[in-house]
Amino acid sequence: MKPYAFGVDIGGTTIKMGFFSSDGKFIDHWEIPTHTENNGEKVLPDIARSIKKKLKDNSITLDDLEGVGVGVPGPVLSDGVVNKCVNLGWGVVDVRKKLSSLLDGVYVEVGNDANVAALGEQWNGGGKGHDNVVMVTLGTGVGGGIILGGRILAGANGAAGEIGHMKVSDKETAVCGCGKKGCLEQYSSATGVVRLANLSLAANPSVETPLRDLDPITAKDVFDYAKTGDEFSLSIVDIVGKMLGEAIAHITCVVDPDVIVIGGGVSKAGQILLDAIEKHYRPAAFHASRDVDFKLAVLGNEAGMYGAVRMVLTD
Amino acid sequence: MKPYAFGVDIGGTTIKMGFFSSDGKFIDHWEIPTHTENNGEKVLPDIARSIKKKLKDNSITLDDLEGVGVGVPGPVLSDGVVNKCVNLGWGVVDVRKKLSSLLDGVYVEVGNDANVAALGEQWNGGGKGHDNVVMVTLGTGVGGGIILGGRILAGANGAAGEIGHMKVSDKETAVCGCGKKGCLEQYSSATGVVRLANLSLAANPSVETPLRDLDPITAKDVFDYAKTGDEFSLSIVDIVGKMLGEAIAHITCVVDPDVIVIGGGVSKAGQILLDAIEKHYRPAAFHASRDVDFKLAVLGNEAGMYGAVRMVLTD
Repeated sequence: MKPYAFGVDIGGTTIKMGFFSSDGKFIDHWEIPTHTENNGEKVLPDIARSIKKKLKDNSITLDDLEGVGVGVPGPVLSDGVVNKCVNLGWGVVDVRKKLSSLLDGVYVEVGNDANVAALGEQWNGGGKGHDNVVMVTLGTGVGGGIILGGRILAGANGAAGEIGHMKVSDKETAVCGCGKKGCLEQYSSATGVVRLANLSLAANPSVETPLRDLDPITAKDVFDYAKTGDEFSLSIVDIVGKMLGEAIAHITCVVDPDVIVIGGGVSKAGQILLDAIEKHYRPAAFHASRDVDFKLAVLGNEAGMYGAVRMVLTD
Repeated sequence: MKPYAFGVDIGGTTIKMGFFSSDGKFIDHWEIPTHTENNGEKVLPDIARSIKKKLKDNSITLDDLEGVGVGVPGPVLSDGVVNKCVNLGWGVVDVRKKLSSLLDGVYVEVGNDANVAALGEQWNGGGKGHDNVVMVTLGTGVGGGIILGGRILAGANGAAGEIGHMKVSDKETAVCGCGKKGCLEQYSSATGVVRLANLSLAANPSVETPLRDLDPITAKDVFDYAKTGDEFSLSIVDIVGKMLGEAIAHITCVVDPDVIVIGGGVSKAGQILLDAIEKHYRPAAFHASRDVDFKLAVLGNEAGMYGAVRMVLTD
């Protein structure tokens, strides 16, 4: 194996650039801005330029690179072609071919950002030591990644692990961003938690809770007050746990993984969140998968760079 | 590759023995009884003896065998160890090692029977031409198999594809065989369809339907009368389709397959069943997976032998 590799995590605002030794250790990491104008045509050239500069500064040539792994915020087919990245202004882009040609033929792998973050956590984070990992990312939305045998499951349409859009309620009247009603994301994302809290405050005007004095309420507030014992906040956390626990029980009936890793901003709530999920997961799960481990993600914003580079450093 | 292989499908009553050429064509197939007495200790020796006899009758030696694939009605771990087969009287049995030693070291692969049937359908049946197939088997119970990249997904506990025990209803009061309430199997297996019909007949005593004159009702009766336009039977088929369609929408959010294959006795109902499933699947599915194909299984009882032999004939 050649001595160096890059793991690149493309976001809508910044691109995280990770320069790694081929044993998977960071040598350096930095960020560059994401230029989305003109359908994001500068994104890949900017990445190539930044890589070449870093190599030049360290007196390394492209020949010393094992490869470049890239996570992108959109669906990725198994041939490395990205099918629409709204956040980057991209239509259909053959990222593997295009970036490789900008780097004189260097080996490039491409994955969806949520899947790539899951691979990072499986390799070097909350799922370390396990080959089969389901990661659930609770951020502004709910994303997911399925790692089987140490590899990303991309799916026929690049949509494997899109668990935020599992329908978990028949009763919802509000419409999810995807157009459906009752998606997991509507209850368990940061915005979903806040939505649940505001709906319940309005529906229960006589209930006293310190949340009522906040404007706006954040998901962190809900978990923080739940930790202090506020009954209202605890009731919201319980609904979040029920929706997640039952959805994860569906997931384990399908893939029966070694471990479930919970990440994203909402997961900073920590043990109280895991407890709420497990309370509802265990009775809903098929008995063979009932004792699956739940872990918190540990790599934070670096998971994407780790997972991206892992795609080109796979054993 | 050596010229011959066997695909063996172990059931609780009979063992289906398939003798194949290594291009995947049947040379012969037959059945032997399953002797479950004394914790099923004769099952593997009976299989070995039957294989040796067939080889001798055809003047073929064990050296000409590429391998023997075996489907068993219980959870199988990735190392070929079976963890309890209630129907065979087995506890923990290292099927791969034991059968291989009975056959002088021939290569043996082992899989769960539902997963193996799914592999058969993926290879040579309803899923032919696709690498990523979810099979849903509607028999006495509801089983499933997940084939990814042309291989069985077994799961950490041998429980991948156990989709019959996805919880699809919060309102159920009856207990499923697994101990939970509201499992898919309670609505979509042959027994589940009959249960739904009987419950609905009792709850709606004034509704007229030809089903009321039957004792007992079978799942086939429900579909047959639905095909004649009987409103009551159609309403039962619609519930079956809703439970299956929404559960399959969960599944495609996780693995995003190329095709869904519906098999088992209930699937003999044909297009009316697919129509009922798709009606509820499409609106519940994530948009990227919404247009997945639904196919009927085509191999029937031979799927297990095909899938079993495929495990030892994988490209």
